[in-house]
Amino acid sequence: MRTQVAIIGAGPAGLILAHLLHAANVETIVIERQTRAYVEGRVRAGVLEQGTVECLARLGLDQRLRAEGLRHSGTHLSADGEDFRIDLEQASGGACVTVYGQQEVTHDLFEAAQARGLTILFEAGDVRPQDIETEKPFVTCRTPAGEQRIDCDVIVGCDGFHGVCRQAIPPDVLRSFERVYPFGWLGILTERPPVSDELVYASHERGFALASMRSMTRSRYYIQCDMEQRLEDWPDERIWDELALRLGPALGARLQRGPSFEKSIAPLRSYVAEPMRHGRLFLAGDAAHIVPPTGAKGLNLAVSDVTMLGEALAEFFGEGSSAGIDTYSARALARVWKAERFSWWFTSLTHRFPDTGDFERRMQVAELAYLRSSPRAQASFAENYVGLPLA
Amino acid sequence: MRTQVAIIGAGPAGLILAHLLHAANVETIVIERQTRAYVEGRVRAGVLEQGTVECLARLGLDQRLRAEGLRHSGTHLSADGEDFRIDLEQASGGACVTVYGQQEVTHDLFEAAQARGLTILFEAGDVRPQDIETEKPFVTCRTPAGEQRIDCDVIVGCDGFHGVCRQAIPPDVLRSFERVYPFGWLGILTERPPVSDELVYASHERGFALASMRSMTRSRYYIQCDMEQRLEDWPDERIWDELALRLGPALGARLQRGPSFEKSIAPLRSYVAEPMRHGRLFLAGDAAHIVPPTGAKGLNLAVSDVTMLGEALAEFFGEGSSAGIDTYSARALARVWKAERFSWWFTSLTHRFPDTGDFERRMQVAELAYLRSSPRAQASFAENYVGLPLA
Repeated sequence: MRTQVAIIGAGPAGLILAHLLHAANVETIVIERQTRAYVEGRVRAGVLEQGTVECLARLGLDQRLRAEGLRHSGTHLSADGEDFRIDLEQASGGACVTVYGQQEVTHDLFEAAQARGLTILFEAGDVRPQDIETEKPFVTCRTPAGEQRIDCDVIVGCDGFHGVCRQAIPPDVLRSFERVYPFGWLGILTERPPVSDELVYASHERGFALASMRSMTRSRYYIQCDMEQRLEDWPDERIWDELALRLGPALGARLQRGPSFEKSIAPLRSYVAEPMRHGRLFLAGDAAHIVPPTGAKGLNLAVSDVTMLGEALAEFFGEGSSAGIDTYSARALARVWKAERFSWWFTSLTHRFPDTGDFERRMQVAELAYLRSSPRAQASFAENYVGLPLA
Repeated sequence: MRTQVAIIGAGPAGLILAHLLHAANVETIVIERQTRAYVEGRVRAGVLEQGTVECLARLGLDQRLRAEGLRHSGTHLSADGEDFRIDLEQASGGACVTVYGQQEVTHDLFEAAQARGLTILFEAGDVRPQDIETEKPFVTCRTPAGEQRIDCDVIVGCDGFHGVCRQAIPPDVLRSFERVYPFGWLGILTERPPVSDELVYASHERGFALASMRSMTRSRYYIQCDMEQRLEDWPDERIWDELALRLGPALGARLQRGPSFEKSIAPLRSYVAEPMRHGRLFLAGDAAHIVPPTGAKGLNLAVSDVTMLGEALAEFFGEGSSAGIDTYSARALARVWKAERFSWWFTSLTHRFPDTGDFERRMQVAELAYLRSSPRAQASFAENYVGLPLA
């Protein structure tokens, strides 16, 4: 097989890139290790930046998103049980976020890919990007139809943190930066209306909590927990009691408890790999960087990566200019580091750390009090939360 | 002796409070452990917030400050040798800072105190605030003229971190919060023009540096150093070389080296005591809180404390209302914690810590890059740097 761009990974990054390149008349083949059902079933983030929504709109992929997504013009922060609202729309000068599950985004992307005739190879095992330092790279893999070799001009790794693409970059070229946080997030879904019609990020002496949602009838809650703990340590009632405590008396009293599903404990990590390009291999999304989930930057960062890369590749194939692809890594990383900073800062502000002493806790509370009192601090928070500009 | 307000400590906090109360027709006696020459000789901060300048102006104490102080409408930050300017005046909506040494402020305050006939007892040893839980407190001390007893209605402790007043509050009432930083500031003065006509706060891989000044012919420089090091470890040439490195090639090349004086190593500490009032004893300034010097909040925080306290005491003595003094501690602490947060944040952003790994350093660099690129982040920085509102 032969194509212009071989995209490894059919998560949101890979699929959006395929759609962007399709719109620019660049040929792609997407190679995915799993089945479509598996990819669509993965529970992930659910808060889309304004720029992510605009990207999907430009691709004509926002019909269901506009109909079913929840547009949030504000968000709540809570300090030891007392919450306040930041008017994101006002503070950012007009931008909002949209609550729409990653599963829904992925579903829409697959549906449109099928309708538009994009090529996706599912269940591709033993995927290997090869000859990436030449102008004739190729990808080999094994699909249910047999061994495949995809010759191409460019390979893009959208295959996530554990994928093969980043590992294909020589270790003396790749530099990585990492922080593993000393706690995890215990998350549940429940078929009950959310406690608040906007998200509540709660910083409590006992630890962090987040009241989120998938819809106005399905809630998503998280609490900070020890990574040593197991799901058996957290029967539903204990989770509800802890949530009620951390959200504070006003919200706690309104919490609608229900049976949980999709209960899981996830680790928190910050990670960045530099550069995001080596020869004819480009990285985008989780393949190159991971953020802790506080502030929901992961999916959005993947979208800004492929937006920049899509434009650069369109220039490369359309006009023969390599200016865009040559600066992709630096431009993408500039935004990545700012989103990493925001996610790290927001995590540091709201979580209890093993070395959070009395003074450090007061610094968190003082920062929340400052944020509550200052329109300027809210403007800075809001521009990060709704998404920094692309360049 | 008898007065309405006994003020312990003739630093800027105590002297400004005495002037404020004098203007409100409230009697004071200031009790100082040292001589006037000693107090005037102490080298301290030199950057005054807009509100501090306005306070001195309202007291008619700004003639020399206006003539000799340097009005700075901006400040520079530097990341690994590359500096950028924040236009404080524009970003804050019109406010500035003024460079005018604390020694000069203290001199002006003493001169005016003499001219206005304020009572200051110098060289007062064994100062003891007594009966502070009653409505008839008094202070005893030993002056060159003999044993003294000053009966009063209110005692104000402006006697600094090591003073006696905070210690007079029962330990079961006082709660304190502290962080001692794992490094110090090595500071020098030199009779050479400053490297930049505005301050430069430099965050460098090797550690923090600050290029400051007392005047356009006298420079003040600081570098972060280990607290274990001694002055002998730092001959002038080593300091100049290190400064040149940390300020980066452009500024480093312009550095005018000269013989240093007032060379010293100072520790960095964050400290807050709560409450700032017990019975008829009130605390203000360093007696209640210490900030690390990054951002120069110490003197300014003392001025905002006594501004609030001066008004409250004027109400108490003038109108018999205790509303102001009853809320003083909470109101002062609300601002104190925000200034503590800013000083802690600015210190954390710019210094090298023992646990600053590659990821943490990148977070510092990313935060500086964000600050450089975002007018909103600069607005938030500027409002803190020029001084948050009083209430």
